[in-house]
Amino acid sequence: MSDLTMIEAAAERLAGHARRTPLLSSPFLDEIAGRRVLVKAECLQHTGSFKFRGAWASITALPEAARARGVIAFSSGNHAQGVALAARMHGVRAVIIMPSDAPRLKIANTRALGAEVVLYDRAREDRDAIGAQLAEERGLALIKPFDAPQTIAGQGSTGLEIAAQAAEQGVSGGDVLVCCGGGGLTSGIALALEGHAPGLRARPVEPEGFDDTARSLAAGTIRRNDRLDGSICDAIVTPQPGDLTFPIMARLCGPGLVVSEDEALRAMALAFLRLKIVLEPGGAVALAAALFRPDAVAGDAVIAVASGGNVDPGLFARALAALPEGD
Amino acid sequence: MSDLTMIEAAAERLAGHARRTPLLSSPFLDEIAGRRVLVKAECLQHTGSFKFRGAWASITALPEAARARGVIAFSSGNHAQGVALAARMHGVRAVIIMPSDAPRLKIANTRALGAEVVLYDRAREDRDAIGAQLAEERGLALIKPFDAPQTIAGQGSTGLEIAAQAAEQGVSGGDVLVCCGGGGLTSGIALALEGHAPGLRARPVEPEGFDDTARSLAAGTIRRNDRLDGSICDAIVTPQPGDLTFPIMARLCGPGLVVSEDEALRAMALAFLRLKIVLEPGGAVALAAALFRPDAVAGDAVIAVASGGNVDPGLFARALAALPEGD
Repeated sequence: MSDLTMIEAAAERLAGHARRTPLLSSPFLDEIAGRRVLVKAECLQHTGSFKFRGAWASITALPEAARARGVIAFSSGNHAQGVALAARMHGVRAVIIMPSDAPRLKIANTRALGAEVVLYDRAREDRDAIGAQLAEERGLALIKPFDAPQTIAGQGSTGLEIAAQAAEQGVSGGDVLVCCGGGGLTSGIALALEGHAPGLRARPVEPEGFDDTARSLAAGTIRRNDRLDGSICDAIVTPQPGDLTFPIMARLCGPGLVVSEDEALRAMALAFLRLKIVLEPGGAVALAAALFRPDAVAGDAVIAVASGGNVDPGLFARALAALPEGD
Repeated sequence: MSDLTMIEAAAERLAGHARRTPLLSSPFLDEIAGRRVLVKAECLQHTGSFKFRGAWASITALPEAARARGVIAFSSGNHAQGVALAARMHGVRAVIIMPSDAPRLKIANTRALGAEVVLYDRAREDRDAIGAQLAEERGLALIKPFDAPQTIAGQGSTGLEIAAQAAEQGVSGGDVLVCCGGGGLTSGIALALEGHAPGLRARPVEPEGFDDTARSLAAGTIRRNDRLDGSICDAIVTPQPGDLTFPIMARLCGPGLVVSEDEALRAMALAFLRLKIVLEPGGAVALAAALFRPDAVAGDAVIAVASGGNVDPGLFARALAALPEGD
């Protein structure tokens, strides 16, 4: 069970290893949103997303003998790279099980970070069975992407930084919008804010058609997505909120927000133009909500977590092409 | 005359107003360079370049009565935006004299930051005469882009941060590569390093064909560029090093480095892919030298200052198109 103490302990283990990412702003974004907009640039974290935090927290929490045997993870993207780098920094083996149709760049990056990549056929093979067998044979520890106490604690360290950085900028109340997949980052931040910045309230943001968390929060019970493919926001598409993350979000979070893919692309273009950071669509939905859903947000200031920037050049160029002429 | 005391005083005035930009890294860049590469991401500074520092330091150093009358600057780009924002944050008027053929985005941004923009015809009008008349009529204080003690002191605050951040990462020796136009940033960093990190040595980096500083350092006396137009690195193209900046660079800096425009574009693409930051060509030449001139650089680690990110979307897309297929 994750709690503030566990998050603070994870933050201590992360100190000097994860980056304390900056809280950025631009008067041009404030004008669009009609209020101050502060952007937690977690795309600048190691491996280009917040996932390094949970991976590091999980690996450092393993008993020494278990850690020495190595770790295993399932992921087609950001979690893979976070686990691979955190394992390498500990000098332990990482096995990452990835679908054979994952983007070549993400497979190549994961291998380049020293991990052994095991590919499987999504249509014909059972990922969990492959993983269970490998874990059993080699004694590997499974590092879950969101629904595990240490993963939530590691992601929650982002919330401790937000609380401190917002206070430095004179912001003590309002919404903290978080790009939400399985809810590890959102629930971790919510717990951290409850303890360190009770005037700030975490709220999940999802893409249209993949709003399982928003619907689950509205219903008071877990709801699933109808489909899992076809979103450019692939980094934050999961079947449903986690069994551990959902109760935390239900207790602490405000209502979920939903934005379109087009709004995510526009937020990417504005982050390029005004903040000089690179976001992937799934890492831009919170900023999109901050900019384009002003009536749904509370407070004089809004904080948006920009959770990742691992985007293919072609898709990024598509986002830039949406900028008006002369911008 | 700029010195360490003046830089430290400027840094105190900047505290809480300028961003302490992060020192980023990626194992993928280390592999290309064959040594550790640390990137000071000054593109994340307010208005997208280091210029805010010098503008803030200059404006805060004015006597109160002079400051209240307002400031004036000549610039087609980053200095304009830095001065405009710093003036607005002080609630004082800024007049910026820009060529009528400056990029529309930069003119629009400067106006949107509250400055009065006065356009002039490069071919037919005398910029200095227009500026002198306006300054005289309205009692405005001129904020110089590089060759002034407070400008150098403000840019030098970047060097104090580099010294501290490098020490945090265990780096106490090696080259600090700096994108160099008139030499305000390079000379300021050189002075800061002399006092706070004597094992680190600043070195200017310029684009091919506009290497006035490298040639001046080699000759021991100021040399001019043959031409001033036609470079995509426009942000760092100046006629020659400054009368104040050159002696500092001659005393403290290592030899200048020169990279091609193509190398600057490749460095932009790699900064996108591996660091998730947006660089303009003139802000990418130092990283290009760190990555592609390994034999010309000393030390187990190299620090590159990424000085700005104000780039048009079309040019940025061109840099991304240079990435190999699959990246």
